[in-house]
Amino acid sequence: MLYFDFAATSFPKPKAVLCACTTAMETMGNPGRGAYALSVHALKQLFETRAAAAALINAEDPMRIGFTQNATMALNEAIAQIDGEIVTTAMEHNSVLRPCYARGGVRVVPAPKGRLRAEDVINAVGKQTAAVIMTHASNVTGEIYDVEKVGAFCRDRGIYFIVDAAQTAGCVPVDVQKMKADMLAFSGHKGTFGPTGTGILYVGSRVHKVRPLLSGGTGSQSYELHQPDTFPDVLEAGTQNVHGITGLKAGIEYVLEAGVENICAHDQALAALFIREVSAIDGAVIYRRDCRRTGTVPVNFDGVSADDLCEALAERGICVRAGAHCAPLAHRSLGTSQTGVVRFSFGWTTSEADVLEGVRILKELLGTQA
Amino acid sequence: MLYFDFAATSFPKPKAVLCACTTAMETMGNPGRGAYALSVHALKQLFETRAAAAALINAEDPMRIGFTQNATMALNEAIAQIDGEIVTTAMEHNSVLRPCYARGGVRVVPAPKGRLRAEDVINAVGKQTAAVIMTHASNVTGEIYDVEKVGAFCRDRGIYFIVDAAQTAGCVPVDVQKMKADMLAFSGHKGTFGPTGTGILYVGSRVHKVRPLLSGGTGSQSYELHQPDTFPDVLEAGTQNVHGITGLKAGIEYVLEAGVENICAHDQALAALFIREVSAIDGAVIYRRDCRRTGTVPVNFDGVSADDLCEALAERGICVRAGAHCAPLAHRSLGTSQTGVVRFSFGWTTSEADVLEGVRILKELLGTQA
Repeated sequence: MLYFDFAATSFPKPKAVLCACTTAMETMGNPGRGAYALSVHALKQLFETRAAAAALINAEDPMRIGFTQNATMALNEAIAQIDGEIVTTAMEHNSVLRPCYARGGVRVVPAPKGRLRAEDVINAVGKQTAAVIMTHASNVTGEIYDVEKVGAFCRDRGIYFIVDAAQTAGCVPVDVQKMKADMLAFSGHKGTFGPTGTGILYVGSRVHKVRPLLSGGTGSQSYELHQPDTFPDVLEAGTQNVHGITGLKAGIEYVLEAGVENICAHDQALAALFIREVSAIDGAVIYRRDCRRTGTVPVNFDGVSADDLCEALAERGICVRAGAHCAPLAHRSLGTSQTGVVRFSFGWTTSEADVLEGVRILKELLGTQA
Repeated sequence: MLYFDFAATSFPKPKAVLCACTTAMETMGNPGRGAYALSVHALKQLFETRAAAAALINAEDPMRIGFTQNATMALNEAIAQIDGEIVTTAMEHNSVLRPCYARGGVRVVPAPKGRLRAEDVINAVGKQTAAVIMTHASNVTGEIYDVEKVGAFCRDRGIYFIVDAAQTAGCVPVDVQKMKADMLAFSGHKGTFGPTGTGILYVGSRVHKVRPLLSGGTGSQSYELHQPDTFPDVLEAGTQNVHGITGLKAGIEYVLEAGVENICAHDQALAALFIREVSAIDGAVIYRRDCRRTGTVPVNFDGVSADDLCEALAERGICVRAGAHCAPLAHRSLGTSQTGVVRFSFGWTTSEADVLEGVRILKELLGTQA
């Protein structure tokens, strides 16, 4: 099997992550809800994971790392903080677009042919704009955007800047201070190699008061009939996924040990290799071919259905994804709403040989000389 | 170690649950987001878990089982469906109280000395009442309430009935049809022995249109800029916790195999044994001593601080919980706001010998003849 769907989730998970989850289930009670060792141990793991996540994204305070069930929930919570117009982009995932459309008051920056520049985003900010929310990298094209430039503008302007780092945390250096991000969301099970059921919302110190998305037990200030407004409790209601979060800690440590810079260079080299090889195939269309990207590359082949090709690849044990990738406006921008694309996405555990073998099988299926 | 905190979470988890989670991490991609085997396999596990959960609570349709990160999130989602006044009770957990207070328009039925009768709840329903939400059993006293009676009234009255089954699902027979529950929430990691990061929201067929609490990618209708209104997608945004949910399936199967009736009888017998033994201790106060209950028993001892006793028990390896148990109005009702109680809660893996050993150590610490 060749797994080329890192943009959806990382696979396989490191052994350390599996072990951490199992050990957590064997040794932990409900975190922070008891004075006994199982419970205290669980609470400690939450804090250690906050610290690891803070280190990954250079957050100033681990207490401003909140755990959610996935990046989507983190993004919903971030968006719920905004009063006034939100500027976002056509390259966003539905995890940004749908909550923005659900609340209303959203302006979407177009991305003709999938091209989106920081200036385009900046120019869309108007007097009514209260926040800009954008992805650090597209989950369709893999393109990495100049969020630092947008963040600096937002900070100067005194509006919030929210970053969706679902495609980059763990794969591309993410620094909330350099980005001047007021909130940043990512999923635990993608670039940080954690299990599903884990997501992170970072809330920067400029966000003084958080409106909790969920209210419930926090094991703190229990006689108070409203959610506590202290961090991290304001971000978390009910029992945290301490089993998964402990696995996430192991995943973040795995990434920090490998080095995010190294992972980024590795993924980019594989993407470049793949692009070089596929470019030689007749009728190949590579979207946003020359952009600065993650390990994600979207392709199509003249006269070949993306869905059919994906299924044929799946039958040969190659895991890639066709369809809309939950990014409807990105596909409209690319002109691929009707066709979709075949998305190859490579990660830290992908080798050059894997990519070359994938291309060989791809060529075989396309009836091209390998 | 003696683990007597099943009301907080079940421990230890069955081996089958640990194995299921590990296998899930080793064999699953992102569910429903690809045509390849890893992804299809993951999607299938989601549906099998929906079916298992539906069987546990006698839900008419597995597609109306939605996965959340915990019971709290499920309760927040249920409460978000209600327009108009909500009637709830003083015996609720903060997972019900806090979201109710956050929205406003809530009437709380008092529970003097912790006593709450179905008639009291029914009598509180007024012309403005749109829904009743109440717990199936108190997490402080363990008392099981006559939710069938309240549900029948609500159905006749044409208002929604929402049940918090966090303390009962897996421990006490739960039948949404007998209860006439329109929505029912429970956590996966308590009576159903799953891992953390799992919760269930059941939405009955009388609830035609759900307002999604979260919006985001569903892997379905991806070109639609609003959350799909079909079940279960309307209840779930972003990647589901498929690793945890697969563990939850194993937990529910474990419970179904043991038989919920058997588990209930077992827990009740242990609670009765504990009450009998503790009653013999001078100065023992057992709250709601003679009620129909789960395996949970709250106690205090004259002149002994609940917190200190809990810590002393923890040092002797006995896991019980003091404090407010995230149920402030329950403690006000019991008159224990200042003192808290020591909550013992027994479960399926607790033995009679464990209870007797716990009592022996308790007596030792209290300086009573064992």
